Amino acid sequence: MNILVLNSGSSSIKFRIYTMPHEELVAAGLVEKIGSEEADIQVEFRGQRERLSQPVQNHEEGLQWIADFLTERVLVDSTLDAIGHRVVHGGEEYSQPMLISEEVLDKVNELAILAPLHNPPNAQGIQVSRRVFPQAQQVAVFDTAFHATLPPHAFRYPIPNKLYEQYGIRVYGMHGTSHQYVTKQAASFLDKPMSETNLITIHLGNGCSMTAVKNGQSVDTSMGLSPLAGLMMGTRSGDIDPSIPFFLSNQANMSPSEIDQLLNQESGLKGITGENDLREVLKLRAQGDKMAQLALEMYCYRIKKYIGAYMAVLGEVDALIFTAGVGENSDIVRERSLAGLENLGIELDVEKNQEHLSGIRQLQRASSKVKILVVPTNEELAIAEQTYQVLSKNN
Amino acid sequence: MNILVLNSGSSSIKFRIYTMPHEELVAAGLVEKIGSEEADIQVEFRGQRERLSQPVQNHEEGLQWIADFLTERVLVDSTLDAIGHRVVHGGEEYSQPMLISEEVLDKVNELAILAPLHNPPNAQGIQVSRRVFPQAQQVAVFDTAFHATLPPHAFRYPIPNKLYEQYGIRVYGMHGTSHQYVTKQAASFLDKPMSETNLITIHLGNGCSMTAVKNGQSVDTSMGLSPLAGLMMGTRSGDIDPSIPFFLSNQANMSPSEIDQLLNQESGLKGITGENDLREVLKLRAQGDKMAQLALEMYCYRIKKYIGAYMAVLGEVDALIFTAGVGENSDIVRERSLAGLENLGIELDVEKNQEHLSGIRQLQRASSKVKILVVPTNEELAIAEQTYQVLSKNN
Repeated sequence: MNILVLNSGSSSIKFRIYTMPHEELVAAGLVEKIGSEEADIQVEFRGQRERLSQPVQNHEEGLQWIADFLTERVLVDSTLDAIGHRVVHGGEEYSQPMLISEEVLDKVNELAILAPLHNPPNAQGIQVSRRVFPQAQQVAVFDTAFHATLPPHAFRYPIPNKLYEQYGIRVYGMHGTSHQYVTKQAASFLDKPMSETNLITIHLGNGCSMTAVKNGQSVDTSMGLSPLAGLMMGTRSGDIDPSIPFFLSNQANMSPSEIDQLLNQESGLKGITGENDLREVLKLRAQGDKMAQLALEMYCYRIKKYIGAYMAVLGEVDALIFTAGVGENSDIVRERSLAGLENLGIELDVEKNQEHLSGIRQLQRASSKVKILVVPTNEELAIAEQTYQVLSKNN
Repeated sequence: MNILVLNSGSSSIKFRIYTMPHEELVAAGLVEKIGSEEADIQVEFRGQRERLSQPVQNHEEGLQWIADFLTERVLVDSTLDAIGHRVVHGGEEYSQPMLISEEVLDKVNELAILAPLHNPPNAQGIQVSRRVFPQAQQVAVFDTAFHATLPPHAFRYPIPNKLYEQYGIRVYGMHGTSHQYVTKQAASFLDKPMSETNLITIHLGNGCSMTAVKNGQSVDTSMGLSPLAGLMMGTRSGDIDPSIPFFLSNQANMSPSEIDQLLNQESGLKGITGENDLREVLKLRAQGDKMAQLALEMYCYRIKKYIGAYMAVLGEVDALIFTAGVGENSDIVRERSLAGLENLGIELDVEKNQEHLSGIRQLQRASSKVKILVVPTNEELAIAEQTYQVLSKNN
């Protein structure tokens, strides 16, 4: 079965095509700068990379380009069976991937209230895909779904009930596909049933989030109503005193949308150093830049505090899981985040931590009660798997 | 030396008079509803309580009433030597109690930008006291001072540097006088030098905050720029996704000051149950009220997460300290907050926890690595002590 995985952003479409159930990656690509005369298209296929620039006015044209590429070059003798769409927000409704009906599509559009930057392009990607790939079955995989198991004392905010009832203001969490994927990988690596595995999963990419996983289920997570909450990120603040927006409005005379922009686009690593990419921050730090040093300390300190908080939530923890770009690759972030946690049973093997290997691996000392793993994430493969499962169940 | 301790709020003045260094409480009282024709005055003196109602137009009249009461009945043969003023916000300037000069008073007024509800009445209390008690020396004791030792990675927010440089947006923390007082008491009780004592102090009153104390010094605390951050409180939300104010502005069409009011006055226990007093919440819960049960779980869950976070920050912890109204009196809050923390070395003796005793006491099981203490706080006595020390040093 050929499954296309689509991640439709506001001006980009990422895609991968897998043959399932063999999990073979057939082709991958990216259409960026949609809406411009010089959209950027990159594809990887049969070990070759190609890059071209051409006008792509809208998502329809972008997906049509992808359809032509697939038909003419990738799936010459076979058909596209299904599309798995990454949908950021599934609200309280969707705790599982869903075969897309009119009702599901309407709901994805409605949930734009909770994810105004993400759900509208996701919905548009679905709508256009149905025209461009009429023969393919369409499945939505929600990035909030893994967190549907949060208990009320973790997902409710201490604010008036009516804000939950009327507007759905609660913790939803994000990066669920990644947290779920690495949980499954880690349980398998540890040779434990997922339903008996307790983990703290630490997804550090451009966005960052952590999840407390109890018996294979998400019981708490650091992102909240939106992807702004929790850890310090590339350009997002993460947790701050909730009076700061009011202070900025009152004292700095900023509008709500200026404040929103400031906290989402100008904060995090960028707010302290001017750079949003941790690799650039580490370069500055290597040159003796004090603000880069401070930013690294802040970034790791916040991870450390969440580790402690989730140790308290879980009681027993089998392993900490580092994943995504920074989590998989930055030994210094892992080392600084775990320094001084020996009393909590967390002992990093500093030498193992510095080896630059790929694949799933362990980094703890032999005496460490809690294991420390690096588990590469693969959200696209996880979406392909879930899409395949939904269709297998429905057929 | 007779020291008057004053806590001037927007429509109230609390006072106590101590003879130092004997720490003898001579009299105590409260003037409430200042500005009304029926202000409420309560005093305790020589074991007797009195209550009267009379017009008190402003702080000047309130303090004049206190002055007359002291002169005519309390200090008949002696004089008032000094006044220790509780001042909520000392900004980055004041890490110690200060003899009040024009410069200090100006600064207290300037810092109203950071504590708009608290510093103006504090400053007014100082100004009026200088007229009403011209012979007394005046000292300001800052509620932020104990947290002056926070390191930059703990006190800086991941937001643009200019907001720190221009507006002083950083973590200041509150309840410092209480956290410092119970730290000193606990170190003495544990028979350890304060400079070698690591504690997590948990102040649960109407406002709630926690502090990580390393070698006797505050290294992190849950309140932030304002007293809104951190734990769930009587009417304050504590930590929430910082996008919620924007969401309320955008979707619920609320103004910044309505949002501020909602998060400070209508949230916390009150937001979930309608009651802001934990004792009332516990009564509802005993009647089977599900929202009261949820509110208690949320309240304790947030304490538990901060305990874990501060265990990670501190590495080694000698004791957890519960203090203030709820912390000293609610066995159920202590029990629920500590449930499941055995793997972190925290083992509550459930029976000891339920004994209703007064005074400093231990509640852990013999096998618990971390001690669990109840330490009654006494912010007024702490202010009297600090005032006495400042004057002893200056004379």
